[in-house]
Parts: sequence; C-alpha cells; structure tokens
Amino acid sequence: MKKKLVAACVAFALAEGVAFNAMAHQKPDALVKNRQSAMNLISKYFGPLAAMAQGKVAYNTNTVTRHAGYLDALSEMPWDAFTPDTANEKSRALPDIYKNANGFKTAQERMVSAVDKLVAASKSNNEAGVKAAIGEIGKSCAGCHDNFRAKQ
Amino acid sequence: MKKKLVAACVAFALAEGVAFNAMAHQKPDALVKNRQSAMNLISKYFGPLAAMAQGKVAYNTNTVTRHAGYLDALSEMPWDAFTPDTANEKSRALPDIYKNANGFKTAQERMVSAVDKLVAASKSNNEAGVKAAIGEIGKSCAGCHDNFRAKQ
Repeated sequence: MKKKLVAACVAFALAEGVAFNAMAHQKPDALVKNRQSAMNLISKYFGPLAAMAQGKVAYNTNTVTRHAGYLDALSEMPWDAFTPDTANEKSRALPDIYKNANGFKTAQERMVSAVDKLVAASKSNNEAGVKAAIGEIGKSCAGCHDNFRAKQ
Repeated sequence: MKKKLVAACVAFALAEGVAFNAMAHQKPDALVKNRQSAMNLISKYFGPLAAMAQGKVAYNTNTVTRHAGYLDALSEMPWDAFTPDTANEKSRALPDIYKNANGFKTAQERMVSAVDKLVAASKSNNEAGVKAAIGEIGKSCAGCHDNFRAKQ
C-alpha cells in the first residue's frame, strides 16, 4: 500500500510538470548541458577559494568547509557526460577527450585527488594544507583545460 | 615562501585561462546560470531515483547512496542565486519568489529536509524509507515549481 502511495506521489510530481532525467541514456545535448552545469558550479565554489589562496579575500573556515564539501560532490559529476556521441555538439570540448581517453581520465583523477586533499585539510582545519590543495586544484583545472578544451 | 608559491600557482592557473567566479557579488545572468545549473544536476540525479520509486528501473543501493550524497550537496546550491536583481533576467522564475520570500524559503526547506531523510535512509540501507523520501522530494519539487515557476 505504502509502495503504491509513493509511486503515486512521484507520478503526481512528474505529472505536475517536473521533468526529470529518468533514463540512463541521455541525449547528447542534455549531456553537454549536464557537464557544463557541473563545471559552472565547480567554478562558483572554487572561485572564492582561489581568491582566499591568493590573499584577495580573507580566509574563512566556514566557507572553506562548505565549498570543499560541495566540490567533493561536484568534482565527480562532469565526467560521465563526456561520451563520444556528444562530439558533434556545440561545446569547447576537444576531440582529444575521446582520442586520448587515458590522458583525459588521468586529468580528471588529478582534480578529484586534489579535491580529496582539500576536504581532508578542511576537516582538520589545516589552513596551509587547504591553501596548498587549492593551488593543486587550480593547476589541475588549468592542466585539463589546456589539453582538452578549446581556447575561447 | 610556501604561501607565495601557492598564490603563484593559483595565479598561474587563473592566467592560463581558467575563469572562476571569484567575487561574492555575481552578475544577474551568472546567478541565473548558477541556479539553473544546480536545478539541472538535481534533475540528473533525482530522475533515476524517481524511476526506482516508480518501479520503472530496478532498485540499486549503490546508485541510491551516490545520488543521495550528490543531492545532499546540490539541494543547497540554487537558493542564494535567487536575488531580486535577477528578476528581469530571462528565466521561468516567478515574481512571487521575491514577493513571498517566506513561502519560497519554506518550499526550499521542505526539499532540503526531504533530501536529509533520503540521505539518512540510504545510510541505514532502509529501502522503504528511501522510497518514501524520494516521494517527498518529488512532491517538494512539484510544490515549489507550481507556485514559483512559470509553466512552460
């Protein structure tokens, strides 16, 4: 009975105009939008941290902890949307993403690993470690963009 | 010395074409893009859960745990980008978001609270609790969209 009720509630929600990406295989344009959304939010939450590491804004432990947690989730989100069927979509993604899949994977892992270091340093309230990890994240962004993203 | 090195690395990363949202006060169009990015990713990770609760796809504990963790972060992300200076930007956000700020806040909290229940149920591997929470999240999405988002 409860199962039916839940199913009915979700069905109601869907019918009420809430469109979800329910299927595993999304269309190429939706995939591009997904990965760009993740990159956009990574930028939103990394930006203030970069500014702190650069001394442009004051160091704030609450912001560091919150943004580190967000980046922990966000840093995993873009990658499954870089599928070969998106290669003809309008975006700055370069063909090397698919030709050099191992290199692209290594670049992803570098970023995820740097974010893991940020999370660990933020949890132990280690300001020097946080700033070092921010620097590593910045380099991982730039390194990947240099090789796998078209210049504007 | 180390501080300077980190600052130099971040400066290098920035100079290399990585553009971040470094400032707290973003432009209205960037704010709209940020909140739409968060909503897009909420849809990406909620969709498969809704399909599970509806019995359209098999229940998968790994997917539930991963998506619950992502939604835990994502459910907090859209709200600070609904600022009055975005009211004239092209989007489906209705004026009631700003006229009825308390109601909008309540609708946000309903969703965040439902996601908290999903996270708790997923951590204790409580399938019935997970499905009930998915139903609640679905209703919270629909409830907010009904009142605060223009129909397509």
